[in-house]
Amino acid sequence: MRSRIATDIDFERDGRQTSFLRLPHSSDTSGYGWIPIPVACLRNGTGPTLLLVGGNHGDEYEGQIAIAELIRDLDLATLSGRIIALPAANFPAVMAGRRLSPIDAGNLNRSFPGDVNGTPTRAIAHFIETELLPIADVLLDLHSGGASMIYLPTALARHTNDAKRAAGLEALLRVFAAPVSVFGSPAGAREDRTLEAASERCGVLNLGIELGGGAWVTPAALAVARRGVRRVMRHMGLVAQADDAPATQMMALDSDDCFVFASEWGLFEPIVDLGAEVAAGQAIGRLHCVETPWRAPKTELFRAAGRLVCLRARGRVDRGDCLGHVVTPRG
Amino acid sequence: MRSRIATDIDFERDGRQTSFLRLPHSSDTSGYGWIPIPVACLRNGTGPTLLLVGGNHGDEYEGQIAIAELIRDLDLATLSGRIIALPAANFPAVMAGRRLSPIDAGNLNRSFPGDVNGTPTRAIAHFIETELLPIADVLLDLHSGGASMIYLPTALARHTNDAKRAAGLEALLRVFAAPVSVFGSPAGAREDRTLEAASERCGVLNLGIELGGGAWVTPAALAVARRGVRRVMRHMGLVAQADDAPATQMMALDSDDCFVFASEWGLFEPIVDLGAEVAAGQAIGRLHCVETPWRAPKTELFRAAGRLVCLRARGRVDRGDCLGHVVTPRG
Amino acid sequence: MRSRIATDIDFERDGRQTSFLRLPHSSDTSGYGWIPIPVACLRNGTGPTLLLVGGNHGDEYEGQIAIAELIRDLDLATLSGRIIALPAANFPAVMAGRRLSPIDAGNLNRSFPGDVNGTPTRAIAHFIETELLPIADVLLDLHSGGASMIYLPTALARHTNDAKRAAGLEALLRVFAAPVSVFGSPAGAREDRTLEAASERCGVLNLGIELGGGAWVTPAALAVARRGVRRVMRHMGLVAQADDAPATQMMALDSDDCFVFASEWGLFEPIVDLGAEVAAGQAIGRLHCVETPWRAPKTELFRAAGRLVCLRARGRVDRGDCLGHVVTPRG
Amino acid sequence: MRSRIATDIDFERDGRQTSFLRLPHSSDTSGYGWIPIPVACLRNGTGPTLLLVGGNHGDEYEGQIAIAELIRDLDLATLSGRIIALPAANFPAVMAGRRLSPIDAGNLNRSFPGDVNGTPTRAIAHFIETELLPIADVLLDLHSGGASMIYLPTALARHTNDAKRAAGLEALLRVFAAPVSVFGSPAGAREDRTLEAASERCGVLNLGIELGGGAWVTPAALAVARRGVRRVMRHMGLVAQADDAPATQMMALDSDDCFVFASEWGLFEPIVDLGAEVAAGQAIGRLHCVETPWRAPKTELFRAAGRLVCLRARGRVDRGDCLGHVVTPRG
Amino acid sequence: MRSRIATDIDFERDGRQTSFLRLPHSSDTSGYGWIPIPVACLRNGTGPTLLLVGGNHGDEYEGQIAIAELIRDLDLATLSGRIIALPAANFPAVMAGRRLSPIDAGNLNRSFPGDVNGTPTRAIAHFIETELLPIADVLLDLHSGGASMIYLPTALARHTNDAKRAAGLEALLRVFAAPVSVFGSPAGAREDRTLEAASERCGVLNLGIELGGGAWVTPAALAVARRGVRRVMRHMGLVAQADDAPATQMMALDSDDCFVFASEWGLFEPIVDLGAEVAAGQAIGRLHCVETPWRAPKTELFRAAGRLVCLRARGRVDRGDCLGHVVTPRG
Amino acid sequence: MRSRIATDIDFERDGRQTSFLRLPHSSDTSGYGWIPIPVACLRNGTGPTLLLVGGNHGDEYEGQIAIAELIRDLDLATLSGRIIALPAANFPAVMAGRRLSPIDAGNLNRSFPGDVNGTPTRAIAHFIETELLPIADVLLDLHSGGASMIYLPTALARHTNDAKRAAGLEALLRVFAAPVSVFGSPAGAREDRTLEAASERCGVLNLGIELGGGAWVTPAALAVARRGVRRVMRHMGLVAQADDAPATQMMALDSDDCFVFASEWGLFEPIVDLGAEVAAGQAIGRLHCVETPWRAPKTELFRAAGRLVCLRARGRVDRGDCLGHVVTPRG
Repeated sequence: MRSRIATDIDFERDGRQTSFLRLPHSSDTSGYGWIPIPVACLRNGTGPTLLLVGGNHGDEYEGQIAIAELIRDLDLATLSGRIIALPAANFPAVMAGRRLSPIDAGNLNRSFPGDVNGTPTRAIAHFIETELLPIADVLLDLHSGGASMIYLPTALARHTNDAKRAAGLEALLRVFAAPVSVFGSPAGAREDRTLEAASERCGVLNLGIELGGGAWVTPAALAVARRGVRRVMRHMGLVAQADDAPATQMMALDSDDCFVFASEWGLFEPIVDLGAEVAAGQAIGRLHCVETPWRAPKTELFRAAGRLVCLRARGRVDRGDCLGHVVTPRG
Repeated sequence: MRSRIATDIDFERDGRQTSFLRLPHSSDTSGYGWIPIPVACLRNGTGPTLLLVGGNHGDEYEGQIAIAELIRDLDLATLSGRIIALPAANFPAVMAGRRLSPIDAGNLNRSFPGDVNGTPTRAIAHFIETELLPIADVLLDLHSGGASMIYLPTALARHTNDAKRAAGLEALLRVFAAPVSVFGSPAGAREDRTLEAASERCGVLNLGIELGGGAWVTPAALAVARRGVRRVMRHMGLVAQADDAPATQMMALDSDDCFVFASEWGLFEPIVDLGAEVAAGQAIGRLHCVETPWRAPKTELFRAAGRLVCLRARGRVDRGDCLGHVVTPRG
Repeated sequence: MRSRIATDIDFERDGRQTSFLRLPHSSDTSGYGWIPIPVACLRNGTGPTLLLVGGNHGDEYEGQIAIAELIRDLDLATLSGRIIALPAANFPAVMAGRRLSPIDAGNLNRSFPGDVNGTPTRAIAHFIETELLPIADVLLDLHSGGASMIYLPTALARHTNDAKRAAGLEALLRVFAAPVSVFGSPAGAREDRTLEAASERCGVLNLGIELGGGAWVTPAALAVARRGVRRVMRHMGLVAQADDAPATQMMALDSDDCFVFASEWGLFEPIVDLGAEVAAGQAIGRLHCVETPWRAPKTELFRAAGRLVCLRARGRVDRGDCLGHVVTPRG
Repeated sequence: MRSRIATDIDFERDGRQTSFLRLPHSSDTSGYGWIPIPVACLRNGTGPTLLLVGGNHGDEYEGQIAIAELIRDLDLATLSGRIIALPAANFPAVMAGRRLSPIDAGNLNRSFPGDVNGTPTRAIAHFIETELLPIADVLLDLHSGGASMIYLPTALARHTNDAKRAAGLEALLRVFAAPVSVFGSPAGAREDRTLEAASERCGVLNLGIELGGGAWVTPAALAVARRGVRRVMRHMGLVAQADDAPATQMMALDSDDCFVFASEWGLFEPIVDLGAEVAAGQAIGRLHCVETPWRAPKTELFRAAGRLVCLRARGRVDRGDCLGHVVTPRG
Repeated sequence: MRSRIATDIDFERDGRQTSFLRLPHSSDTSGYGWIPIPVACLRNGTGPTLLLVGGNHGDEYEGQIAIAELIRDLDLATLSGRIIALPAANFPAVMAGRRLSPIDAGNLNRSFPGDVNGTPTRAIAHFIETELLPIADVLLDLHSGGASMIYLPTALARHTNDAKRAAGLEALLRVFAAPVSVFGSPAGAREDRTLEAASERCGVLNLGIELGGGAWVTPAALAVARRGVRRVMRHMGLVAQADDAPATQMMALDSDDCFVFASEWGLFEPIVDLGAEVAAGQAIGRLHCVETPWRAPKTELFRAAGRLVCLRARGRVDRGDCLGHVVTPRG
Repeated sequence: MRSRIATDIDFERDGRQTSFLRLPHSSDTSGYGWIPIPVACLRNGTGPTLLLVGGNHGDEYEGQIAIAELIRDLDLATLSGRIIALPAANFPAVMAGRRLSPIDAGNLNRSFPGDVNGTPTRAIAHFIETELLPIADVLLDLHSGGASMIYLPTALARHTNDAKRAAGLEALLRVFAAPVSVFGSPAGAREDRTLEAASERCGVLNLGIELGGGAWVTPAALAVARRGVRRVMRHMGLVAQADDAPATQMMALDSDDCFVFASEWGLFEPIVDLGAEVAAGQAIGRLHCVETPWRAPKTELFRAAGRLVCLRARGRVDRGDCLGHVVTPRG
């Protein structure tokens, strides 16, 4: 069934169009209203289509900023093809600055393929998978660690058994040139509710970019986003110019053991720094019992050696919360 | 009137005592209960008294950790005098990991002199001002920027016209040896509801230490806390040993113009790094309008030159939120 | 699967029966309880069945009152046939005086065909579609603008390509004789989750009546409801007597352009009155920026000419909220 | 003690100044922030001072709009004196569109004389009473019935035993020329927590204007506000021009019996129209029991004859809610 | 200052009057409303005054029921004197079935002497202390353990150094004849915010009766309430007839050690029954760690011997919650 | 599709393994976390499998305690076979001490067969039905009346037309030897969303045990749980020893008339005791109108004779809440 989301953007028209996806939503204070999800289409002539998504999670900000800049600033005369920009994809979550939508507690990145009659988050997923992905060639989905995690800027591609697709993804990783690049593990390939899974279903080459996190923005992470997006645009032939970048560090994420999870409730004290090379069995940090501070803290250990690219960015933790993860040299 | 908060700690007894301040609190689920605020008294013989406070704000963690360590690890045989440790002062806020108490929305550091019959936050303030400060010589109140701000580790003392007190505070600042030290401005002296105002009323030398922030802990900020507390203990004669430290940078905080506040609602992109030297009129960052991303962002400017020691650590901002503040060379 | 909702009403029995639909619902405070949705069956001999629904949205009150009166006051000796009365259809929403159910945030009028195992709102929709509509001939679904909108009393029928059904609906509109009558557009025919869509699926002639709104009741709107229901009863042969009424104004609702939506967040000042004839391009009102009152307000314009039958009834608006809609002369 | 609220407006300077009252407020998401309450000072030469207050209650909108217009549009060359404009006095309530502040549930109009250390609502009251009223001659406090009531536009003055003040107030009522004018009863004089009580304490002539209500705006009520404010400006000598107006109906409000309160919980159906002349013992409306609709509704009666100037504007009522009030001919 | 609470009850008039205390309270949904606290005055001729209070805590039900019965059923011809009945004293809490008021989180029994301008709970306390206690001779304040505790029915009187008052209270205890009677300890005499402290300030003889608890009603506890109230009425000369009762067990409550508090968070398993005679050091129960069920539970011990008259009635406990208390033989 | 819930328990390995079901759950404070549901596998050699479930509802505590004890204390040397223990099945509900999960308002016992992609409660149901039931022979699902009801300890089996299964269930009932045993009615057989329905789908013999209730634990109810579980273990051949027990009273639950539901909102006063033998038409209790206490209460009647094994354990009731139920002699 066709999405109930409407827009007055004509994706087949040249020019810089900015408007909204109008998602019908009835509430106690608005019987006939719609949720206004900003969207832009920048097109000049024929050429490939790049879909840029920010705000997949509402508390991840670099993509929201970098994509908005591009909407405002890109000189259309330099463009050959089309850019569809969705800088605040889960709009209610974006306005709240939260990972999940405050309307339906929905995690957009676990909502694909969505539902035409579902809650707003699921309706957005359905629109992306049925209306936007089918007309895209490449998707860059700009994430960060959000409020709970902080990343060393890292680009990730999803494992595929399709050699051609794998080559395309690896090329994209090298072009984007984040400080670290990672191919997701076969295990992760099982998750079919993400935007990257949707992209694969639609034959769209997709990178997920983890830029920074901690619920704020750093100039450094934002610079990685700007440069990488532009480099992919050049790679696709959309523009002629882009900045040089140092080569990325190609890594793997092959095992659940790369992740460390809290074994208790408490206050987390990390004792390694983001970006460090760590050994299996080394301590990532300690969990303190602030309600009974004379009790010894619990030390939490890495289960695998590698480079620490993601670290918990909130002091209070619950058992089961991720404390960080490493990536490993590519085999 | 005497506080209704009870404890079985005997502050006049030698030894390592750990227990709770029992704050009576009746709720729908506990008619006769009390809130258990952890407290410790470490005493060996006669000598001065150091009062250590953490968790004045519940989302500021370095003090909670460093004071708990000291409770557990200090060798009493090396101690000459008394340490009273209150690592989770606004306990309901600490357990929630929030600045304010979830019970009464109380900001402990704006609640002094408190109220014997007031809400829990005010009752805690009353207890500290009437029971703990009168038996203390020095207070270290360990803060950070909490969930909303992040600091370069900075120690602060409150302006006083009393030359002897000023000398004592300046000595403490140099001993604590945070990377940056600041004397508060005469303007700030007007605020009489803080723990530092209460300390001055009680004749207790007090430093407020801003360690890190962003709702998490860094090894570096924690190291400053540990070292500084120990150095103050040696300075007071409580212990004989402490680590050396580089000299602190003595700065001033003389003007409201040192602070930058958001002039709009939006998503904050900082464009300088914490610790930078900045000029008046220079941009601290931009506020983005993510709901209408094709609108130009608003650039926010520093009003005074100085060193940026505090920066907003959350992307979403409301008009009136602090974006950062500088400190200035001491005149 | 058969609905889990039970009732002790026997719809095949003569007399005035009043009781509840018992919707099983387990909560923290009631393990084995049910939600008591009032229902009545008034029957005397054989004859057609009129289903009266109020409280489809909980903040729409005329139907709740008019149907309850009829339950209490109708002289069964004058009745030939059956009236099934559901004056508080989404009962949790009705008790809360809200559009949506406070239990599941469900909008009953977007929940058809419902779900036998779904949340309460969906279970109610399922019961109506599977148990009540199959035994009804005509449905009057009494709405108003609710808390967010206010209507000039207007009866609406849904477009159909079935000429016989269209004739039946047009007759009903003329009989009900609201001040304004409207046939919905082909576009609207796509919405299949409403009670009117369910009625069409079940072959039941259905009018939706928009009476007043603004979260309260006016004597004038209520009088339209009372008179119209009685006139439809006479039209169906259920009773012999009903009051005369002036002819209704037959209008169309052919285009999305009949609706005006807020293009910004702000405080809405309407500058036309409900019921006015307006031109395309004319202003409906202004959106004020009360947080920065020295900024100029935004003027919002009608996109189509017609009669303004629905106007926003709350000052604060979000972008995307409906500000009003016109109806147009029937082509 | 002096208010902690600061502003960069210089009330002694000529010109059109627009800025904010900066009310310090610390929250979990903003440690050092302030609440930005818009304020303007329009001054040209010497002359009297008119203080205009809107948003005393956040869900009362005509004053917010009319005062903002005046800030934007008044030609300062035509002004002789000073206007201090506070269009959104309880700013957190205004932004929420609620009567009470969402921060502290404060009703500004029951918070005077306020508290320098109190919650935001009380701090605002303190600022108005200690900083603004002392420099004002006349105060117009623009209200409406808010979300719960709707008024026929009515101006009210508070009873005083001071004959000169009474004469000044009566003159103001006639100048403002609302359709109805009322002097409050001696009984009401007991309430000392309102802005009008504060005005009397400060020797400021004050009218409270009840414009419309129901949580929205009507062109008619707004026109009364605009015209009346301008007429008072002319009366004070601030401007030379203003529109004519029909004479107001001078009425009294002498007895608690003028008010009708709900004796039960239920759904309110009014059966008289706003503005009607009613008799004691006449019914104002009925309370319906929608959960048991076959029960007879409760009829509620007027206790005094008079003109109905205020009527409940929400269907759901609790026992004790006001259903309306009359005013009586002046004895 | 005189209370703002009004009532149309004339306490000096004979007869059975039932009405409301009208507590002015403005909310977002009711600008001019009042909270309707039920009250009754039963009077026949001259004689003493008994004040009956139920619903001091909203989740304590026996008093609410027993006092309502007496309002309905007492034969005034048999009465010599006056009964003032306040069966739902903290009315918002009573309607919510919660200990504390949902409006202001107020615990009425820690709110005396109240505040004429305070929140509803404090305004009620002020009314009782300034309007009702001054005209009463005896007060029976009917409590239970509420949602969190369950009692063996026990009557309590507050320690006094006034021998005449002590004799009056002891006589009342023997007359009420609860299964257990207790004189409060000198320590408890310090609490001055309770209704019993207010009673003593006003020279009113007062018993607090703890009937059952656990958030429900038992026939047995209710029977104790009915019989005891009637026996006190006979004792005061208000009525001639009352039922016999077995002698009460006179006990003491001399020490904080009579109370057992949870030393951890967890799930409480009591291992003694209410009413048991227990020894110091005996276990009252265990606290289970359900999130890590393979950890050993914590056993909690009685600190004093005595009879267990109060036991925790909720499984989940927080550190500091009361698990039960004993009473001890009277010395 | 295979459950996304993982565990490191190897159900095919001998020994006492304790760990967690790791249910992936992303929240605003934990992007990559999982919910840690405790689970244990106790196995020694070959033999049958007993699945023990507690915390199906979070406010039912005996099972949580009894199963945890067994995990800790069972001597594996005495075991022949396997016990899979899930003492806190709906873990979020268990931690909150609520019937329903605070995350999704899910009632686990109405969530089968669950949904691999559903909310946490539905994902748990899916795991139990697809991973645990297929490897079990017998299931004991330990319930109580929770916060809203209190039971005389009663074991229940679900009606089946399969004579062999019926015999197996009846034997289990006699072995468990609760004071009362009940076979569910044919009517109840229609409910297919319970754990017992899932058990039947999987061919697992299942008893549901209702132990006590009222949101707390009694020693007596816990003793029934311990003894019954052990006796079933002996019956299955898992252990050789168990305690004797008096014969259970075998009863039926044949009719909806066994249940009494509140016909009004109010305060419930039961007038019979749990365990009583009652007659049809006898009163179970009264509903009091505490807001208008001079109104007569409503008496509620039993509709069927039998033994009262379940009684409402909260004073405040809504219309439709269950007040209690009887069981009847087996026909």
